[in-house]
Amino acid sequence: MMNMPPSAPDAATCTPTAPTRPAGPETAVPGQRIERDLLGEVTIPPGALWGVHTKRALDNFPISGTTIGTFGELVQGLVTVKQAAARANLALGYLDRTRADAIEGACRRILENPACRAQFVVDAMQGGAGTSTNMNANEVIANVALGLLGEKPGTYAVLHPNDHVNMAQSTNDVYPTALRLGLLLAVDPLLDALGGLHAALDEKAEAFGAILKVGRTQLRDAVPMTVGQEFGAFRTAIATEISSLKAHAAAFERVNLGGTAIGTGLNTDPRYASTVMAELRRLIGRPMVSAPDLIEATSDVGAFVLFSGVLKRLALKLSKMSSDLRLLSSGPRTGLGEIVLPAVQAGSSIMPGKVNPVIPEAVNQVAYLVAGHDMTITMCADGGQLQLNAFEPMIGYCLFTSIRTLRAAIETLTTRCINGISVERARCQYLSDINIGIITALVPVLGYDTCSTIAKRALAENRRVTDLIVEENLLSPERLAALLRPDALTSPNVGLQAG
Amino acid sequence: MMNMPPSAPDAATCTPTAPTRPAGPETAVPGQRIERDLLGEVTIPPGALWGVHTKRALDNFPISGTTIGTFGELVQGLVTVKQAAARANLALGYLDRTRADAIEGACRRILENPACRAQFVVDAMQGGAGTSTNMNANEVIANVALGLLGEKPGTYAVLHPNDHVNMAQSTNDVYPTALRLGLLLAVDPLLDALGGLHAALDEKAEAFGAILKVGRTQLRDAVPMTVGQEFGAFRTAIATEISSLKAHAAAFERVNLGGTAIGTGLNTDPRYASTVMAELRRLIGRPMVSAPDLIEATSDVGAFVLFSGVLKRLALKLSKMSSDLRLLSSGPRTGLGEIVLPAVQAGSSIMPGKVNPVIPEAVNQVAYLVAGHDMTITMCADGGQLQLNAFEPMIGYCLFTSIRTLRAAIETLTTRCINGISVERARCQYLSDINIGIITALVPVLGYDTCSTIAKRALAENRRVTDLIVEENLLSPERLAALLRPDALTSPNVGLQAG
Amino acid sequence: MMNMPPSAPDAATCTPTAPTRPAGPETAVPGQRIERDLLGEVTIPPGALWGVHTKRALDNFPISGTTIGTFGELVQGLVTVKQAAARANLALGYLDRTRADAIEGACRRILENPACRAQFVVDAMQGGAGTSTNMNANEVIANVALGLLGEKPGTYAVLHPNDHVNMAQSTNDVYPTALRLGLLLAVDPLLDALGGLHAALDEKAEAFGAILKVGRTQLRDAVPMTVGQEFGAFRTAIATEISSLKAHAAAFERVNLGGTAIGTGLNTDPRYASTVMAELRRLIGRPMVSAPDLIEATSDVGAFVLFSGVLKRLALKLSKMSSDLRLLSSGPRTGLGEIVLPAVQAGSSIMPGKVNPVIPEAVNQVAYLVAGHDMTITMCADGGQLQLNAFEPMIGYCLFTSIRTLRAAIETLTTRCINGISVERARCQYLSDINIGIITALVPVLGYDTCSTIAKRALAENRRVTDLIVEENLLSPERLAALLRPDALTSPNVGLQAG
Amino acid sequence: MMNMPPSAPDAATCTPTAPTRPAGPETAVPGQRIERDLLGEVTIPPGALWGVHTKRALDNFPISGTTIGTFGELVQGLVTVKQAAARANLALGYLDRTRADAIEGACRRILENPACRAQFVVDAMQGGAGTSTNMNANEVIANVALGLLGEKPGTYAVLHPNDHVNMAQSTNDVYPTALRLGLLLAVDPLLDALGGLHAALDEKAEAFGAILKVGRTQLRDAVPMTVGQEFGAFRTAIATEISSLKAHAAAFERVNLGGTAIGTGLNTDPRYASTVMAELRRLIGRPMVSAPDLIEATSDVGAFVLFSGVLKRLALKLSKMSSDLRLLSSGPRTGLGEIVLPAVQAGSSIMPGKVNPVIPEAVNQVAYLVAGHDMTITMCADGGQLQLNAFEPMIGYCLFTSIRTLRAAIETLTTRCINGISVERARCQYLSDINIGIITALVPVLGYDTCSTIAKRALAENRRVTDLIVEENLLSPERLAALLRPDALTSPNVGLQAG
Repeated sequence: MMNMPPSAPDAATCTPTAPTRPAGPETAVPGQRIERDLLGEVTIPPGALWGVHTKRALDNFPISGTTIGTFGELVQGLVTVKQAAARANLALGYLDRTRADAIEGACRRILENPACRAQFVVDAMQGGAGTSTNMNANEVIANVALGLLGEKPGTYAVLHPNDHVNMAQSTNDVYPTALRLGLLLAVDPLLDALGGLHAALDEKAEAFGAILKVGRTQLRDAVPMTVGQEFGAFRTAIATEISSLKAHAAAFERVNLGGTAIGTGLNTDPRYASTVMAELRRLIGRPMVSAPDLIEATSDVGAFVLFSGVLKRLALKLSKMSSDLRLLSSGPRTGLGEIVLPAVQAGSSIMPGKVNPVIPEAVNQVAYLVAGHDMTITMCADGGQLQLNAFEPMIGYCLFTSIRTLRAAIETLTTRCINGISVERARCQYLSDINIGIITALVPVLGYDTCSTIAKRALAENRRVTDLIVEENLLSPERLAALLRPDALTSPNVGLQAG
Repeated sequence: MMNMPPSAPDAATCTPTAPTRPAGPETAVPGQRIERDLLGEVTIPPGALWGVHTKRALDNFPISGTTIGTFGELVQGLVTVKQAAARANLALGYLDRTRADAIEGACRRILENPACRAQFVVDAMQGGAGTSTNMNANEVIANVALGLLGEKPGTYAVLHPNDHVNMAQSTNDVYPTALRLGLLLAVDPLLDALGGLHAALDEKAEAFGAILKVGRTQLRDAVPMTVGQEFGAFRTAIATEISSLKAHAAAFERVNLGGTAIGTGLNTDPRYASTVMAELRRLIGRPMVSAPDLIEATSDVGAFVLFSGVLKRLALKLSKMSSDLRLLSSGPRTGLGEIVLPAVQAGSSIMPGKVNPVIPEAVNQVAYLVAGHDMTITMCADGGQLQLNAFEPMIGYCLFTSIRTLRAAIETLTTRCINGISVERARCQYLSDINIGIITALVPVLGYDTCSTIAKRALAENRRVTDLIVEENLLSPERLAALLRPDALTSPNVGLQAG
Repeated sequence: MMNMPPSAPDAATCTPTAPTRPAGPETAVPGQRIERDLLGEVTIPPGALWGVHTKRALDNFPISGTTIGTFGELVQGLVTVKQAAARANLALGYLDRTRADAIEGACRRILENPACRAQFVVDAMQGGAGTSTNMNANEVIANVALGLLGEKPGTYAVLHPNDHVNMAQSTNDVYPTALRLGLLLAVDPLLDALGGLHAALDEKAEAFGAILKVGRTQLRDAVPMTVGQEFGAFRTAIATEISSLKAHAAAFERVNLGGTAIGTGLNTDPRYASTVMAELRRLIGRPMVSAPDLIEATSDVGAFVLFSGVLKRLALKLSKMSSDLRLLSSGPRTGLGEIVLPAVQAGSSIMPGKVNPVIPEAVNQVAYLVAGHDMTITMCADGGQLQLNAFEPMIGYCLFTSIRTLRAAIETLTTRCINGISVERARCQYLSDINIGIITALVPVLGYDTCSTIAKRALAENRRVTDLIVEENLLSPERLAALLRPDALTSPNVGLQAG
Repeated sequence: MMNMPPSAPDAATCTPTAPTRPAGPETAVPGQRIERDLLGEVTIPPGALWGVHTKRALDNFPISGTTIGTFGELVQGLVTVKQAAARANLALGYLDRTRADAIEGACRRILENPACRAQFVVDAMQGGAGTSTNMNANEVIANVALGLLGEKPGTYAVLHPNDHVNMAQSTNDVYPTALRLGLLLAVDPLLDALGGLHAALDEKAEAFGAILKVGRTQLRDAVPMTVGQEFGAFRTAIATEISSLKAHAAAFERVNLGGTAIGTGLNTDPRYASTVMAELRRLIGRPMVSAPDLIEATSDVGAFVLFSGVLKRLALKLSKMSSDLRLLSSGPRTGLGEIVLPAVQAGSSIMPGKVNPVIPEAVNQVAYLVAGHDMTITMCADGGQLQLNAFEPMIGYCLFTSIRTLRAAIETLTTRCINGISVERARCQYLSDINIGIITALVPVLGYDTCSTIAKRALAENRRVTDLIVEENLLSPERLAALLRPDALTSPNVGLQAG
């Protein structure tokens, strides 16, 4: 998806390069350096390309142990915003070519080299509305850029995290934009996983299309259908979710970049917003557009809320399918036993031979995690105040985690469960034969009352309805067989046409 | 929205008409009658147009005290489905004209006469996947139709709730379809209410457009904006929700009517589905379509889940706006005090003169109810099993209640709060003057470091930044005034263009 | 529970009594009257015992259509607080005996006459932190008291809703206290319902104690148990919930009465808090105590949050039991079919003879409503600000509704489902016989590996494990029978003792 | 808390020890080994002390990337259960001393060496009801024990993960017991963190006790209080939560160990349950007891559900406090500005000098995560079926994560926020002086009506109520000063006693 020109062949790592000349304050420990902010001085450890603001955040937010670098797509989104901004600032004459090229080069290096994400160390659960995430990016990009310029990390007089990397930006427009870009990137592999699941279900729907079985409503025996129809319904559900995901992810193409602190665009050139958006479209290869009301867009998290609802619906579809698979495969002897899930691990340390539906069980649980995240996002959304919502970092954490676990769950469901499902044909046939609900198909011929009587008697006497009907001479065996042909039972019935 | 031909002028009530000839079993109490089902006999009280199945449900589900008749749109949806089915069954030759006309007439009478909803007595919280709701409708329609035919209620040998009113139908296709129709009907007044709110916000955004105020992020003083921009953001939020509601409600135009028990269309004529859908489109005046996979559609509740998410997002927008209004109007003396909400009731029994933001508080609470309903719907959705979701009645209860309370909350918010909001202009001006964050606008001219120093000193010495800047000769008063012109502060700044 | 002396025999209704002398402003319509507040005049309709503040609230909150009077226990709680306050104010010399007696008489009348609740007309969903509810109570009590004094409604110069009925009180201590009292009252019938359910389950556990069946884990055939053990587990679950409810409801005995506006007790006599609490204990017959920190208690809603969690846990237990009942009774032919739920209504309009587990389905749905209310309460709790939580009315609505629907669901579950459950003994025996999991019991004798081999072969060859074991001469039929005695299979096994 | 005898001094690592004699199948790669289960052979990598069942789980559940070893307390709980079981099996004569000692030694080694947790590699999000977690423990313990016996890993003929380590156990009693033990262990540091927060709040409450400020209800100016009272209320809230946590954690002392597969205790000696429980009490130093109904206890997750509610309530208290701190410190110029939170990092990349309340913001977000986890747990609980709840692994994940993030949030709140809070005394005084609500204190003297008039005029004319009262000669300045003494304003007022 990322559409970027190739970078220099040596841009392989994010370790600080050897400086060509000394710079900045030194400390006793080799490689350490001192940085300062309005609160005073801090020591930055060797190897760190991040700086003082990141260090503050590390101290302030030892919350989850999950760094923002864990969410690779978020890093990609952040760095791409910085790259687009540098290009726009160059184009409009605010940033000189040397610095712009260095920032550009640093961004490419980070985008191309997943190892660089290890420099994005701030905890994913943080206060500050994403400022620490933004500053972590500013600092790493600045120091990588300084390396490209032959400078030591921390030589901010040459190229500054705020003045140059963050030029014409505020966390309040950069971070929400980066979140959206990251989510757009993260949705693609989720869609791939869903595509694989869809294909697997499609194969089963076709393979099982001719096998008659009992349809059940409210866990009670109802009327006939085919196993293929049942798997076809799962396939349809997934197809719907694929469309829904695509349609709703597109909402993330609308961003508030250019609004700066509160959406008024304070301290930006009037040409800036359109210029940076054009660069963003070019870099990301998607039709990114500016939100029409940047003030509203700065504090609005509606797109996240709705997308969380979309993920929750997907999760519920997967959960329902998983619960059905567990029901249908229940047994092996004393349950429904219509299908067999592939055995993927021993099920019990105490019961020999027991095999459990562990894959669908994992999927159910992931679905419930996603539903829980939806509640977290709901409360974060409700906490927005005036010109900002300070709780976007948790929203991001929940969405990225939901997407990631859903994707993993879908992949394992496809490859370790759906692909290996087989049908117990004899069991399906047997249950179809003894099903009393089949009498529904005879209502148009025998009438509701007669059918009710037969049904009641069949249940009381433990007989088959077909036997009773023949025994009572209600229908000839031939007529009965014709009426109960599988195709007549599982679709609208031509034979019922009024004459 | 309902597009129906006029009905007979006498179709005014849903009380049983005087019969022209005796019929059915009589009881000692005048007007009582006896009906029976597979469980035995029950006594139906005088005046009741519902029958035995409804009576069973009344006994089984004394849960909430809220009847399905309370949700008028659901009744409209149900009856319209029955009307469409009767037309289709007539057209296809399954139902004779006399019965079809009687059913048609009964449906019109009920649709036109809201008093008839009092006959829809089943509790909205019920087991059975909506069967009791469907049977309540079948029975009432049958008995109203019998009245039109001059028959006593209960004369089902003439016209039967199941055999004729429910012909070619199952609860499992009728009920989900009726829910969708009902929701389509219920969304319209919600959209009207939102339209009113949008207009009210638009008026305020225009009226307050020139008033400068302090923008705040994370409850901290940030950079300037206008009160009009703030209300404009509210307006934008509501406009977005209006679009979103419309777009997502359209999903309810896809229904599973014709699928009968499990979606296979068992016991329907192959022409039935398309015929009944055409009638439905005609009656409801919307582009209703059949779901492409009726088996999947029979158990699927995805459209409800997503729509609940859409309602929740709307609720959260309203909640955020309400919380902001409460913050902005806080005081009168010791809060932000930028705006004044209209006083609508005395606020305290103990504190003289206290007036509280009671309307926004009510809106917040309704929003939280809607969020809670979303969780209820989530769990109901997860409970779907195999070919049906038995928990649609609770889904319906939650969605209708959410829509209804949201609509009421929006209307009271518009008329009793937004319309009467005024701005404390002097307060806004004063706070703008003392705001340190205004220095942000000078960063492009004075640099970040100088600005930081000034900001720090202003805070420490309790001075205004403008005074300090003039005192320090950093800028002439004229230059300063030009840089801090309201229009320069609240939009991208032409004066910053690179030269 | 209410422990009150008998009242005057004529205190039967809450309709305004004929005044002995004219009073207050009159209007053209007989019985109407005019009242006024700081916002101006309003017309109070004939028959209304509420006044201007209630009228404002009626206009401001047309939200849910559910009045506070619907929640009888809340009304009882409110009125009891007023009664206790009047007694305390009399005892401390702040209220003269005439007024005190009138208030006392009015409170008794309302407490004894459920019809009086119709005067509590404010919508349960309201802003204002309960002020409208409190004022509705003040006004109704004042006007009933005025009637007892022979005065017309509205003659507040004689006895005033605020000055006398609300004396030494604030909504902010009265309302939270009344909520707690109301909840204490509402829990009792819920406990009764649970007691009934417990007894019903106990009876079944005893009756089914000897019937062997297959235990299932993860829907897979596991090891033997008895049907009695299964119902005994349900019984244990309910016993636990009864204890839990009782223990947690006791938290409501700690109230903030006496704290007035923000918990400082402003405008109360230092003796007031202890005096009013003593009266409250006397009236309510429970060990009510003052919260140790009234400031904290004024804004704190923790007791409601936790109690909602307690109700949710109860709901989940009921839901799990209901889901199990539906699974165990699934069929009748193609499901588990171990038990039969009583048929309480016809299940399908299209499928003859189908009967559904509608009662447990209703219970599941109520459980999900309660879980949703827990989320609503969570968000309301999070919205508390500084010295108050303004969202207690919605908390109250959710808790009372949850309790009420849970109680109804439990009662219908007990009487219409549990009481009539029977066991399909032959089916249980058959499934036990074919269950492969029974081999687990032979592991100590034959070893895990041998057992695994037998289990695998039994499944592959569709044989019984017992037949294979005898066929292979692994155990004599007698030894096998001894090892598989039901009591050996369903409890720790004496025969396994090391020797 | 763990009360264990000292172990051998060399038990320092969990790396496989050099074997004294060859054993088991070898592979080409040094250190690799082959293991097999009913599905076939797998290759175990060098250095792994886990075996085939763990390997299956690694392949099946690549879901979250979070291993069970991450939750150290869960590992401690698991291993302690194994240790207790080995002791019981030795005591009852089922396990020989050599093997029992080896298992005992292995358990001690793992308990004492946190590095061993790296061998607990199964994903925390897993299907199978915890079987994979249990087998991971069985395998690691077996292989460490084999090392102690001088055997190579995988030499299960000598000591077997199932036959010996898992003797008399099932996942279905081990795992729920281990979860409870783990939670008991995890709660202690959470309580420590809360103790620290309580102490910090206590210090502030004392330090700020004399500073008068405006109390606010519904964000509107109300009546006076002290800053000390406000922080005292926070302290009380935390004290309540500490008690609540302790009380509710005790529910985890009731476990189902000894119930094996479904609670019947199948395949255990009748003396086993009491013996293993005695060992567990000895090892863990807590009054662990057997659940009275082991069948119910096997599938019951009620203790987790309620504890999640307890954590959620704690989270909501923290969230409310954090929101209050953000409100009270809002500004610095245009907000409430009553307190100052310590500056812990720069707040903005664009606004010089801006400092944000980032610590409380982080706490709010963690609270919402906990609330979301509560929903996840709710849905997991609802998914229990028949004799087991397969979703306990996700319940465990959520509870451990909630506890861990809450603890971290509390610690950072205490050390980086509460400890450094100061009060803007002059601001508090100024706001107190201009507060109109102060007039409430004069109602007992001047009457409600007069006070209302003064309040209204003060607001309209922008005057102080005290000035107006003196100007109008309503009270002498001396009398006024006496009535408005801080102690009279912030507690029940002796001066109001009736006389």
